Amino acid sequence: MAFTYKKSIFAPEQFTKLPKIKGMEIYTGCTHIRYKERDDLLCVKFSEEAVTASVFTKSSMPSAPVDWCQKNLQSKSPTSILIVNAGNANAFTGQAGALCCQEVADALSRHFKCPTHQIFQSSTGVIGAYLDGKILAHTAIHATKLSDFHAAAQAIMTTDTFAKGSGHNISIQGKTASISGIAKGSGMIAPNMGTMLAFIFTDVQIKQELLQSIVKEVTDQSFNMITVDGDTSTSDTFAVFATGASDVHIENAEDIAKFKQSLQNVATDLALQIVKDGEGLTKFVRIHVDKAHDYNAARNIGLSIANSPLVKTAIAGEDPNWGRIIAAIGKSGEKANRDLTAIKIGDYMIAQNGQIVANYQEAPVAKYMKQKEIDIYVSVGIHNGKATVYTSDLTHDYISINADYRS
Amino acid sequence: MAFTYKKSIFAPEQFTKLPKIKGMEIYTGCTHIRYKERDDLLCVKFSEEAVTASVFTKSSMPSAPVDWCQKNLQSKSPTSILIVNAGNANAFTGQAGALCCQEVADALSRHFKCPTHQIFQSSTGVIGAYLDGKILAHTAIHATKLSDFHAAAQAIMTTDTFAKGSGHNISIQGKTASISGIAKGSGMIAPNMGTMLAFIFTDVQIKQELLQSIVKEVTDQSFNMITVDGDTSTSDTFAVFATGASDVHIENAEDIAKFKQSLQNVATDLALQIVKDGEGLTKFVRIHVDKAHDYNAARNIGLSIANSPLVKTAIAGEDPNWGRIIAAIGKSGEKANRDLTAIKIGDYMIAQNGQIVANYQEAPVAKYMKQKEIDIYVSVGIHNGKATVYTSDLTHDYISINADYRS
Repeated sequence: MAFTYKKSIFAPEQFTKLPKIKGMEIYTGCTHIRYKERDDLLCVKFSEEAVTASVFTKSSMPSAPVDWCQKNLQSKSPTSILIVNAGNANAFTGQAGALCCQEVADALSRHFKCPTHQIFQSSTGVIGAYLDGKILAHTAIHATKLSDFHAAAQAIMTTDTFAKGSGHNISIQGKTASISGIAKGSGMIAPNMGTMLAFIFTDVQIKQELLQSIVKEVTDQSFNMITVDGDTSTSDTFAVFATGASDVHIENAEDIAKFKQSLQNVATDLALQIVKDGEGLTKFVRIHVDKAHDYNAARNIGLSIANSPLVKTAIAGEDPNWGRIIAAIGKSGEKANRDLTAIKIGDYMIAQNGQIVANYQEAPVAKYMKQKEIDIYVSVGIHNGKATVYTSDLTHDYISINADYRS
Repeated sequence: MAFTYKKSIFAPEQFTKLPKIKGMEIYTGCTHIRYKERDDLLCVKFSEEAVTASVFTKSSMPSAPVDWCQKNLQSKSPTSILIVNAGNANAFTGQAGALCCQEVADALSRHFKCPTHQIFQSSTGVIGAYLDGKILAHTAIHATKLSDFHAAAQAIMTTDTFAKGSGHNISIQGKTASISGIAKGSGMIAPNMGTMLAFIFTDVQIKQELLQSIVKEVTDQSFNMITVDGDTSTSDTFAVFATGASDVHIENAEDIAKFKQSLQNVATDLALQIVKDGEGLTKFVRIHVDKAHDYNAARNIGLSIANSPLVKTAIAGEDPNWGRIIAAIGKSGEKANRDLTAIKIGDYMIAQNGQIVANYQEAPVAKYMKQKEIDIYVSVGIHNGKATVYTSDLTHDYISINADYRS
């Protein structure tokens, strides 16, 4: 019996209005491969030649499109086409998988009259199933109806329960440029480089090397700080495309900082939307780690807590079971001084200096745990490293969804 | 509403008959601290002075008894008393926790007329709750009814659904000695040194240094190869007590090998019983990893698969979703050659050389997945490292048990 997906309780009432990006056109189509009654293919055509910066999964089992992009795209060369399909990841598909990507590239290259190395490919969905490149290319070529970001975000969904988008205009030196991004993901979410699929588009003019270095930093503070289930995907891809079609140049330090912050805001918003669509979640959780050895130690402690099944189930049960947070800090492999460790949930200090606070009352904390959004603060008494990690709880619905995904 | 614990489907019909160990007496009692209607305290008195070798959790948040043992026990000195309580872990209890251990040691030292550094202490249960050492000592001192290993194994249970024991006689140089062990654990189980509580008793005569080196090796091949939920406990303790009350000396290479193998068999049996009582499990899973870089790489790949929520839920759903195994190999951080990677489930070869085998039929594999015990084989095409990891599936009952443990 197939599990009926309920829309995430964090789903927005409607898709956020995103600014149009000059220098690109969005098309969507239906491949009829896995999803028969909705568009499952996204094709973006860049009219200006877009500068692209990207990061990919660190999995040793990368999907064929990840392989293809890493082998064929040339950082110095612009991007002409972005093609993405949902429902089949084209991962662990051997030579046939590589051939599929080559077929897509060849067909699009002929049709759109651009070199194959200007075609950015991405796939998400089931692992290990054969994917027919001719069908993908055929669908992309015949997708002639202009779409918008909402349709684009919907076309790349798999088990997502809502379409994810974020964007805004930015004003630089009195001129206006725009940033709009889409993302997908709700299971097999764990941070290791660009997590899941996320694409951000902007019409600023910027050098590729500069964009790449910004994207790297932005990723570390957004997609690399979230986890749903600790399972890193074979297909994780995050790319930023800058069409250069506006008259905004990103060159001087001040403008770079401003643009980077704007990009960070969009990327973080998309990353948090992915968590908020975590499979089966009922809680959105921020884990704030302080006084760790350094930033990486703080992040690892945060992830150890965020990925602990015992912590996640306690949160699902609205139980302020702080002992499990202690155990998760302990198992992280990072330095922590037990006798200086403190834990706070919401505004409630629970433990300090290695033990429960005097006169601790559980009732108000238990009441706090009934909220949809939970903040957990841990301080581990080593040095000044801090980080915030974002996650969801672990529920019966996660089990139902994943004991049953392919059936 | 409290979750009703169902007995594990792997629970034996009855507790296995264990040989008596010369030179020790077992007592159990009820502290009335957490469990009111069953014995929850184990006290073992060694009439001969027992040589002890032990390993403890690597958690940076060790419990007070773990701390106490590590600070006070002296490897050169024998053990007179083992005291264990269930229901309260005396972990993250600050100065009060340390004081509790000192009170227990002082009271038992006075009563049994042995130095405090000959008293081995262990606690398991809820983290962060105050534990009264006077009550523990009082219960231990007044536990005067001789018990057996079955009662001992029951007295240290928390969420365990069956008592765990393993043992046998060993014949060395025509003489007979015995090994009997007990263990507890079903949640917060992940390998990092001695996992959970496990105590093995033997009446051989052996030097402490030799026993310690054997215990270290035995641990790596037993308790360190299992995982239920990837959550390492603050209390993990594994100790072997050799009373020396038999006339079997373990000295020469051949006898050492024989004894070590016997100890390994008991330790592995206990470790697998812990997995087979994994919270909410419906499947017992062996993950055999081959052709990894080395033993540690093979173990890490095995644990990455064993701890993947997506793999565990698929197994619960009896779904041969091998793509998730691929993803788990990929995220392990260990070297793997995707294009030489193979996956076999039971007798069914599923993927080879980086892709699905020709004419793969899912139906027989899906049928195989309905078995209670599942074997998964992965080969990652790097070198000759191999390891087997043992785990359980992730089910609705795990969620129910853990969203609700303390209520």
